[in-house]
Amino acid sequence: MTWKVYLSGEIHTPWREELENAVKALGLPVTFYAPVTDHAASDDCGAKILGAEMNPFWHDRKGAGLNSIRTQTLLAQADIVVVKFGDKYRQWNAAFEAGIASCLGKPLIVIHPDEFQHALKEVDSAAHAVTDDCSKVPRLLRYIIEGTLE
Amino acid sequence: MTWKVYLSGEIHTPWREELENAVKALGLPVTFYAPVTDHAASDDCGAKILGAEMNPFWHDRKGAGLNSIRTQTLLAQADIVVVKFGDKYRQWNAAFEAGIASCLGKPLIVIHPDEFQHALKEVDSAAHAVTDDCSKVPRLLRYIIEGTLE
Amino acid sequence: MTWKVYLSGEIHTPWREELENAVKALGLPVTFYAPVTDHAASDDCGAKILGAEMNPFWHDRKGAGLNSIRTQTLLAQADIVVVKFGDKYRQWNAAFEAGIASCLGKPLIVIHPDEFQHALKEVDSAAHAVTDDCSKVPRLLRYIIEGTLE
Amino acid sequence: MTWKVYLSGEIHTPWREELENAVKALGLPVTFYAPVTDHAASDDCGAKILGAEMNPFWHDRKGAGLNSIRTQTLLAQADIVVVKFGDKYRQWNAAFEAGIASCLGKPLIVIHPDEFQHALKEVDSAAHAVTDDCSKVPRLLRYIIEGTLE
Amino acid sequence: MTWKVYLSGEIHTPWREELENAVKALGLPVTFYAPVTDHAASDDCGAKILGAEMNPFWHDRKGAGLNSIRTQTLLAQADIVVVKFGDKYRQWNAAFEAGIASCLGKPLIVIHPDEFQHALKEVDSAAHAVTDDCSKVPRLLRYIIEGTLE
Amino acid sequence: MTWKVYLSGEIHTPWREELENAVKALGLPVTFYAPVTDHAASDDCGAKILGAEMNPFWHDRKGAGLNSIRTQTLLAQADIVVVKFGDKYRQWNAAFEAGIASCLGKPLIVIHPDEFQHALKEVDSAAHAVTDDCSKVPRLLRYIIEGTLE
Amino acid sequence: MTWKVYLSGEIHTPWREELENAVKALGLPVTFYAPVTDHAASDDCGAKILGAEMNPFWHDRKGAGLNSIRTQTLLAQADIVVVKFGDKYRQWNAAFEAGIASCLGKPLIVIHPDEFQHALKEVDSAAHAVTDDCSKVPRLLRYIIEGTLE
Amino acid sequence: MTWKVYLSGEIHTPWREELENAVKALGLPVTFYAPVTDHAASDDCGAKILGAEMNPFWHDRKGAGLNSIRTQTLLAQADIVVVKFGDKYRQWNAAFEAGIASCLGKPLIVIHPDEFQHALKEVDSAAHAVTDDCSKVPRLLRYIIEGTLE
Repeated sequence: MTWKVYLSGEIHTPWREELENAVKALGLPVTFYAPVTDHAASDDCGAKILGAEMNPFWHDRKGAGLNSIRTQTLLAQADIVVVKFGDKYRQWNAAFEAGIASCLGKPLIVIHPDEFQHALKEVDSAAHAVTDDCSKVPRLLRYIIEGTLE
Repeated sequence: MTWKVYLSGEIHTPWREELENAVKALGLPVTFYAPVTDHAASDDCGAKILGAEMNPFWHDRKGAGLNSIRTQTLLAQADIVVVKFGDKYRQWNAAFEAGIASCLGKPLIVIHPDEFQHALKEVDSAAHAVTDDCSKVPRLLRYIIEGTLE
Repeated sequence: MTWKVYLSGEIHTPWREELENAVKALGLPVTFYAPVTDHAASDDCGAKILGAEMNPFWHDRKGAGLNSIRTQTLLAQADIVVVKFGDKYRQWNAAFEAGIASCLGKPLIVIHPDEFQHALKEVDSAAHAVTDDCSKVPRLLRYIIEGTLE
Repeated sequence: MTWKVYLSGEIHTPWREELENAVKALGLPVTFYAPVTDHAASDDCGAKILGAEMNPFWHDRKGAGLNSIRTQTLLAQADIVVVKFGDKYRQWNAAFEAGIASCLGKPLIVIHPDEFQHALKEVDSAAHAVTDDCSKVPRLLRYIIEGTLE
Repeated sequence: MTWKVYLSGEIHTPWREELENAVKALGLPVTFYAPVTDHAASDDCGAKILGAEMNPFWHDRKGAGLNSIRTQTLLAQADIVVVKFGDKYRQWNAAFEAGIASCLGKPLIVIHPDEFQHALKEVDSAAHAVTDDCSKVPRLLRYIIEGTLE
Repeated sequence: MTWKVYLSGEIHTPWREELENAVKALGLPVTFYAPVTDHAASDDCGAKILGAEMNPFWHDRKGAGLNSIRTQTLLAQADIVVVKFGDKYRQWNAAFEAGIASCLGKPLIVIHPDEFQHALKEVDSAAHAVTDDCSKVPRLLRYIIEGTLE
Repeated sequence: MTWKVYLSGEIHTPWREELENAVKALGLPVTFYAPVTDHAASDDCGAKILGAEMNPFWHDRKGAGLNSIRTQTLLAQADIVVVKFGDKYRQWNAAFEAGIASCLGKPLIVIHPDEFQHALKEVDSAAHAVTDDCSKVPRLLRYIIEGTLE
Repeated sequence: MTWKVYLSGEIHTPWREELENAVKALGLPVTFYAPVTDHAASDDCGAKILGAEMNPFWHDRKGAGLNSIRTQTLLAQADIVVVKFGDKYRQWNAAFEAGIASCLGKPLIVIHPDEFQHALKEVDSAAHAVTDDCSKVPRLLRYIIEGTLE
């Protein structure tokens, strides 16, 4: 069985690539999914493909519609959802996807700096694992998939 | 992951072939599904296979029953549903399938001429993307699947 | 048990009032639900409450969003959905709601003039009863609810 | 039919009371639900009832567990979910509840200042109505429930 | 709590009335549901209300459509489904409703003469209780509802 | 896409083999599923594997339990369910499986001799296609899968 | 809103009565559900109502079938499920019902002596609140329902 | 079709390996899933990967969270769930997983010594097959999958 892991949240650091490389180095059977992580493309996709909008609200609506086709489909197919909250931006979308994942019954792994512990307590409470250290996740996936600690 | 895209609606223009060719040219991993698009076969399949009916109502019922075995199954398996409203016929079936797709939680892409904008506002409101230009859909699928605008 | 019946479709004739009166005269325990049937209010509600839009597409989107809060909730609560197709307008919304109702497993009663029989064959095929005569529906509801033909 | 409306989000302004009063003044059949809005009680409920924890992470976990018994139950029972994002705190819980509501198929009304328009675009995109003005919501509920604009 | 009990199957003996009377005598809080048990009405309802059909197949289809609006709705609302197989007719409809009830997760109580034990083994296997004696059911319902044996 | 077709019902004629051969001759991508069709094994599997029972009721219960592990799993995986009612035995199990299939939303094709038309009207009414002639089913599957009448 | 609370587990101590009395004293709007707590009746109900069995396995099967009609229905209706593990018997049924409740998405409150903490860690992990002290539950329900700590 | 079988329960005997070997010897197309069966790893995984906890309750919570990511995912994917109760430990987790499996509609095969027959009657009652002899399971799987007794 190949495990499908959706990586939600922070798009301004290379955490996805690092995680994927570390998991590949462990030889785990994992396929990773993610939202579009090219920030500019993600913001402008709707207007660029479907036509420009004057009002920024509808500009954003068009883009969010396209992005949700991708994220909704991949979230629904995932076996595990990992959500990373970083220290930049408001990241409401990460919390929104955590809510969807939780409602779909997907096991949730949450990564965030310790300083957000109180603000994220409801999200953490719905999670199966919480850590402030992204580098622990590969080992965590190895345990889940192979049952070994080393 | 291969994306399954169901193409609902208009059957009197070659939009499906054109879309499939354009998507193939982009090299996207997509499998297309569609209802039976041979109009005569679609109308008469019930009577031809299961036996003739005098009353056109039951003639149509028999055919619609067979067609829905196909459409219901493929709609349920699709990742994305594209519905095209053309300028001929009443096309209630397209709106009916849009309703089913929406209820199943399938992301919906709607194509229709601008002149139908008001009449289709409820269908559009349930859609993730709306366009009057079929040729935008391949680029749209590329963005959804590969996350790139060019 | 009070039966909840949602009356979808045609909003330009007094068929809902006539049906409700006839059902009341029969003393049946039915509560009727309906979309907003004031056409002007239904078209402009979004702009009037939430603010005007220049682009008619977004004007309609705002209104359709509000209307679907009502229709989605009432459709989901209904025991039976009656959909009437009249001879004016394109009525895609009626077919769209029929699709949602069918997908939700709601028993569907469809009313339409005979001339639409072929164009509506897929909707009819998903229905539990089809008639061209609205005045038959009260007797039909009496049979369903009380099990009597007279 | 009495409509059940869950009021999620901001707990530091009296928007719930104002909204409930305005809706009551309109005579609408609405029952309002809300999370616990006493901030101190909400933070400490777990420790105060079930026993203290040294580690603030588990202190919060205990409280979040209790709060989610209430919020999960009320969200699942609501017909409509209103989520308000204010200008204080990170409010990830509001976005998390919006995700759950969306996944449950609940119609979503989102209130936020214009300045958050871009940051909340994914949440807005899943909403049936978006406004920056809380005082529009009673009129909006009146339209949904009674179908009248005045 | 009032328990909703759907009584499926045999319509040629007065078992429903006897069961309802016995349960009433025990003072149990039960509401009984049933299909239409007037055999002639049940056979002809479609043709009598919606119009005659020459072909008996479509005559029956029309009637079955109406009857299923009632049975489908009541089955879905029931807390418990009781199915009685008698010694007349083929009673496929009883087994069909037992299949639906089982699939819906409704607790199933099956009544049949001992002679049908082998032929009904799959239905019995999906049941929570099986008896050949209808008069045991009131006592059985009392135990389920009140927890008492006398 | 390979279509999964579950063949329910009659086990005393070679209709499954004939159907499978005819479908293979047409080159259709179909995988067939079926209950165990060895009548003796099907009756005695429980006792033979798990241990004998004196009481025939529990003998049958043990066997039915095992058989339902197979049938329940395959029914749930099927895209299409074909149910054949023959002229021998009571075949309640066929109607029971038709009820489950219908409840699961599986498209249903029913085969039965004309003489059973009235007795099976409720099952037929839930079906997408009804025929008295098993040899029509391969052509029917070809139409559903390939959209061609010849 | 009246909250429905199902009290699962231990039947040899008067914890249900004590809990119900304490909750009543607080004036909370709660309806309590429970399995049959008369141990002898619960063990023998099947045989006493439906007829004796020689083999204790089938004696128990008959009784368990009846009991599950009650417990399955009440679990499905509950808003909250409280499971108490005491110090007598193996109590697998309590853990089994906790599994069902968790799978149904019901908020779970678990009560057990500290000594069982390790053995119940998977059940506790699925719970929203865990305590070793039954007398804390009324206060806990008051907080959930009324949002007050005193 | 490859059947997915989840082996729940007892982790202190080599029953999984023996079962897997016996099934392999029969040449059956089965993939086996299991929880982590290394007892020490299963107990300490949370603390070892995510960081130590002083309080054994939270130590166990962290581990149980990780383990449930694996077990929840595999239970949901399984076609059949086999649960073995041994004679050591309290094994509440086995009963808990049986409850989840039952609620998910997974066919359940239960293995336990005869002495636990009364204590496990509710779990047995939800099972499709019960045996005290693990060595019968391969033959049972062969019957389910291939329909043959020898």
